[in-house]
Amino acid sequence: MPEIAVDPDFVERTILEMGRYGAYADTGVWRTVYSPEWVQATDQYAAWCAEAGLAVTRDAVGNVWGRLEGSEPGPSIVSGSHIDTQRPGGRYDGTLGALAGLIAIRALKEQFGRPKRTLEALSLCEEEGSRFPSTNFWGSRAITGRIAPGDAEAMKGYADETMADAMRGVGLDPAAIPSARRDDIDSFVELHIEQGPILEHAGLPVAVVDAITGIRHYSVVLTGEQNHAGAFPMDLRRDPMAGFAEITTGVINTAHRMGRPAVTTVGRAVVDPNGPAVVPRSVAFTVDARHPDPAQRAILYRRHEALMREVAERRGLEISWTHYVDHAPCLSDPGLVATFQDAAREQGIPFMTMPSGAGHDSQQMASIAKVVMIFVRSKDGRSHTPEEFSSIPDIVAGIRTLAAGLYKLAY
Amino acid sequence: MPEIAVDPDFVERTILEMGRYGAYADTGVWRTVYSPEWVQATDQYAAWCAEAGLAVTRDAVGNVWGRLEGSEPGPSIVSGSHIDTQRPGGRYDGTLGALAGLIAIRALKEQFGRPKRTLEALSLCEEEGSRFPSTNFWGSRAITGRIAPGDAEAMKGYADETMADAMRGVGLDPAAIPSARRDDIDSFVELHIEQGPILEHAGLPVAVVDAITGIRHYSVVLTGEQNHAGAFPMDLRRDPMAGFAEITTGVINTAHRMGRPAVTTVGRAVVDPNGPAVVPRSVAFTVDARHPDPAQRAILYRRHEALMREVAERRGLEISWTHYVDHAPCLSDPGLVATFQDAAREQGIPFMTMPSGAGHDSQQMASIAKVVMIFVRSKDGRSHTPEEFSSIPDIVAGIRTLAAGLYKLAY
Repeated sequence: MPEIAVDPDFVERTILEMGRYGAYADTGVWRTVYSPEWVQATDQYAAWCAEAGLAVTRDAVGNVWGRLEGSEPGPSIVSGSHIDTQRPGGRYDGTLGALAGLIAIRALKEQFGRPKRTLEALSLCEEEGSRFPSTNFWGSRAITGRIAPGDAEAMKGYADETMADAMRGVGLDPAAIPSARRDDIDSFVELHIEQGPILEHAGLPVAVVDAITGIRHYSVVLTGEQNHAGAFPMDLRRDPMAGFAEITTGVINTAHRMGRPAVTTVGRAVVDPNGPAVVPRSVAFTVDARHPDPAQRAILYRRHEALMREVAERRGLEISWTHYVDHAPCLSDPGLVATFQDAAREQGIPFMTMPSGAGHDSQQMASIAKVVMIFVRSKDGRSHTPEEFSSIPDIVAGIRTLAAGLYKLAY
Repeated sequence: MPEIAVDPDFVERTILEMGRYGAYADTGVWRTVYSPEWVQATDQYAAWCAEAGLAVTRDAVGNVWGRLEGSEPGPSIVSGSHIDTQRPGGRYDGTLGALAGLIAIRALKEQFGRPKRTLEALSLCEEEGSRFPSTNFWGSRAITGRIAPGDAEAMKGYADETMADAMRGVGLDPAAIPSARRDDIDSFVELHIEQGPILEHAGLPVAVVDAITGIRHYSVVLTGEQNHAGAFPMDLRRDPMAGFAEITTGVINTAHRMGRPAVTTVGRAVVDPNGPAVVPRSVAFTVDARHPDPAQRAILYRRHEALMREVAERRGLEISWTHYVDHAPCLSDPGLVATFQDAAREQGIPFMTMPSGAGHDSQQMASIAKVVMIFVRSKDGRSHTPEEFSSIPDIVAGIRTLAAGLYKLAY
């Protein structure tokens, strides 16, 4: 297999220039879907696709496609990610994957000409849920036909505008959303920053992702008896704060002891009435528990639920919970995993294979295509912040891995 | 010693009538200091004092005094409590003590005539801090000279009005506050509902209170590293929620194991950023720890602080705390404790001796007088709620104990 050349200076210029649209303070980007900055960024992406000799189309939700037609018929091989950011996010989360797809296909075209299979670079319009809290994966959900009629009118943003109005504001017609659906994609390959510290700790620039973790959010309410903090003895209390603390310690220890890649997080707690001199009436909290292996995931959840029930019963507390997020693990296609492992190996790029602990557009795309992801090392494991950073050598290693894998699939 | 007669019907009528001023829903009372309801209640208290043949005066902050002059000179023996309530509170917290002082002195006057020592019934204007959060104990602090010049102008209410304006609104002059100071009180006896379940569990109507607990509020901030809940492995986290949970479990278990009357409460927690899928950056929380014995209190605090430091260091978290409340225990006068124990015993009233886990005006009054308290059983240990309740037989037992003790001191 030939060595794929990717120009580091071009990569750096492209990232920095894209970071200007919605630039926030020194290194941040604030670019929510359908904002003026988002319009500028998608226009820029489309212009770069055209400049690379790709056929540019925009679909009904504002995803931008840059198509390099293959010499043989058949479904496409697509690479990209989302171009929207957190408020503020950085230059890399999402955007890097959209740019990587474009840069890789451009490099392949320049170095190897027309492919046999059609390749497409993709800028997805939205993934972060940073303007419409209930609307993340908007771009990939449109492509996979997972947006229901009326959704755009019903969904409200943080500023109370509807998704439909936001679309109309940038010249898109919500009624046309079904036309964004694609049924001719064979494989979707998404490059993304890791967002965690595993590659950094392993001393490696790149990973091939073999699964996206399964995730469940428990929303738990633990109710006891509100009492005076001074006058009510310890032995007679039914204190939900004590139960909450014991559950939190227990679920965190359970995931820690199960070992990587199990993770459990208690990120949110709301105490009622939350007074310093009052034994609380209730504590509402979340338990976010993730594992990419379906069997291990079931064990993790069973242990969490058994612990929550046991603590509540022993302490005389009422407990109830709902799952407001519950996604099964998304396994990468084994063939694609092998292809991209081989690609990295043959390009001389040191890599590891790991699951993703975060959710990604690939989970949606998996409903219509084979998927795989490539991770690039994140400095200090940071993301969703202006401080997120990946080095140009690491990014180039990621894009070369991507391009080499696409070469294997398409040439 | 003669048996003291207290008429249960009169007691019940008096309580229900006073509960009409600021009546809230069925059984609640909402009567903050210097409100129109408060004016009506203090007028009623003054009228009842006059009706009982006591000489009525009102001081500069609106405390109402009903004086029964003794035949011999010397400092007064005073009994009362505060007439303001929580928002809403019930009919008993505070008010019962103001009424009990009046009813007891009235009964003594009717049954035994003029005392040797001067007796005074007292309605204190404010204790709850329910209108001015930083202004509790306003009535007893005026009497003990603990209000600094300018305090009334500086203190702001929940509705942003100043204490000085609230005083002027009911015809009081803030400049006259120093005139409320008293230096001629020998003993202060405060009857109050227990606000806890100890008497109920012991099956007793009444307690003599030998100490008011020492209290310290720690305001703690625990800071770690904010990270992605999916992408950051358990073994690399510096999670302040995990530290908070371990500290909460530890301080609660420490107080529980130390046994009654030690109490420690974590009543307030504020998580930043408080998102379900984010390992938090910080958790701010309170630790309210109380013990009436000075030596045991020091041990309790030392254990809490050692635990907090150890957990923070082991988990790589930053920790800092301040004490925004730190009151030493207030010991009742041993002679008064013995007097009221004897009084209950001789009246045939079953009682126990216990500390108070809650703060009371007596703590302030202890700076100028000997103090003791009498507790009356609370249904389910409830207070600061419309549901608080004490039965008329229990209240009568409390007032008879009070009156019998006052008889011993004054006749």
